Amino acid sequence: MSLDRLIEGIKTLKSPIVAGLDPKLEYIPDFIINQTQVGGVTTFESAAEAIFEFNRRLIDSLCGIVPAIKPQCAYYELYGWQGMRALKRTIDYAKQKGMFVVTDGKRNDIDSTMEAYAQAHLGVTSRLGEAFGGDALTVNGYLGSDGIRPLLRVCAECDKGIFILVKTSNKSSGELQDKRLETGETIFEAMGKMCRGWGKELPGKTGYTGVGAVVGATYPEQLTALRQELPETFFLVPGYGAQGGGAANVAGAFDPQGGGAIINSSRAIMCAWKKEGCDPEDFAGAAQREAQRMREEIFEFL
Amino acid sequence: MSLDRLIEGIKTLKSPIVAGLDPKLEYIPDFIINQTQVGGVTTFESAAEAIFEFNRRLIDSLCGIVPAIKPQCAYYELYGWQGMRALKRTIDYAKQKGMFVVTDGKRNDIDSTMEAYAQAHLGVTSRLGEAFGGDALTVNGYLGSDGIRPLLRVCAECDKGIFILVKTSNKSSGELQDKRLETGETIFEAMGKMCRGWGKELPGKTGYTGVGAVVGATYPEQLTALRQELPETFFLVPGYGAQGGGAANVAGAFDPQGGGAIINSSRAIMCAWKKEGCDPEDFAGAAQREAQRMREEIFEFL
Repeated sequence: MSLDRLIEGIKTLKSPIVAGLDPKLEYIPDFIINQTQVGGVTTFESAAEAIFEFNRRLIDSLCGIVPAIKPQCAYYELYGWQGMRALKRTIDYAKQKGMFVVTDGKRNDIDSTMEAYAQAHLGVTSRLGEAFGGDALTVNGYLGSDGIRPLLRVCAECDKGIFILVKTSNKSSGELQDKRLETGETIFEAMGKMCRGWGKELPGKTGYTGVGAVVGATYPEQLTALRQELPETFFLVPGYGAQGGGAANVAGAFDPQGGGAIINSSRAIMCAWKKEGCDPEDFAGAAQREAQRMREEIFEFL
Repeated sequence: MSLDRLIEGIKTLKSPIVAGLDPKLEYIPDFIINQTQVGGVTTFESAAEAIFEFNRRLIDSLCGIVPAIKPQCAYYELYGWQGMRALKRTIDYAKQKGMFVVTDGKRNDIDSTMEAYAQAHLGVTSRLGEAFGGDALTVNGYLGSDGIRPLLRVCAECDKGIFILVKTSNKSSGELQDKRLETGETIFEAMGKMCRGWGKELPGKTGYTGVGAVVGATYPEQLTALRQELPETFFLVPGYGAQGGGAANVAGAFDPQGGGAIINSSRAIMCAWKKEGCDPEDFAGAAQREAQRMREEIFEFL
């Protein structure tokens, strides 16, 4: 009923890294696009097939190096229901390879509607089975407890976890999140405290609860401060690499034992083959090398 | 590039009502469930087929009474990619019947990821066409401008609109949204101002912009105050009926001309056949009668 399985995976592989699978078609080598087209034409079906094939090879190559993937729902929804089918196939395949799946959907709603999202992404759909079957889901806490409690119930039943947006990695995150309340704390600090409170309902064996927080690598000071204030809250840290956060910036996300956080890299891993200039057939090898490099870089700072 | 088409639809039918299509299987009459099952068994495919059939008949019955539908993504995702296919079919069918479609996804992310959501739900997917093809999308503004600007671009290109969560209808909405900033305003008031600001980039011919706000019927005082503060912001008002807000509670959402807002009803319309106790075969007729009743009730207060 927590993020324990993710934390165990990180320990086993000594790798606090999650590979973001945000498969834009432009990231996928031509040979995959071509082999999935029918009559030289890209369709919703062929694009979805290309996405799955790209992901499948990345998962094969990464599963010994990183413990988790984070598919971003937007890039699957972009290819319609066919894309959502590729999402389900990707999740199934990663779990089969022993990986932990963080579905990045930033879902939010209330009561029975939020329960539907919780069942769809983390639980089971009545007697039909898993609709998508991720291990954790990113969520937005703007609606308060009515938007979080239904998730906690499903997480407790199905041994799953959630990550709530606290301080996001983007430039304009401060427009709302940094506003100061009359109490003196910022909105993101208030959200962090709410995460900690909700987490008490999903205690974990590792000391970290099943309610994690999303905190961007691009705000290292806030990241370090939140690590102190939220000692039982596990962090999912986006913004490493392409968005500008380096290993020095994420060091503050970790506890003194080097635990408590997982760093996401999407574009740098998926597009490593372009940066390396290697044979496109070796794109998954390049992704593996980039994940290795990132792991070493992070360990230098821990 | 705005919500003008929705506003015209409301005027034509004299009906500021949007029918929420949140098709839980328990809302669907047995005869539809039975006719879609294969060998007496419900599967993801058969559930999705039942959902579409239920929606199709509701749309046929409602399209002369209410100008818009609001499918809630959670209930489609609950049935996996098959459910998302039912969402696409529902949207296509409603548009074919001349209805305006508000996709209730409360999506949120940043930059190119938000652009992917915008294209998926409001725009087109490169040369492939519309992935889902709604006319407006509900979104969550917690991430600031980086999460909204990509939507504004797609809305301007494709004549679409968005609704941003401001003050939601649920009991716990105040946990975050009512917190007071050091400036004296609440978080939801600050979010409302941001909506107004973003709206200036999507002006409409009707005086209302393409950036609407979600404001719950369950907080009539705040609804009335926001109507004054946000004169160019069109309101989507949930919480009528099942959640406890009545016609007196929503009166404050409207401007002096009776415009400026659309009231959502989901369960009361979808489950009218149960409340009426009519022949289940007449479920769509009951939905129509309930929508009529609601329209009259609202007009009493305008």
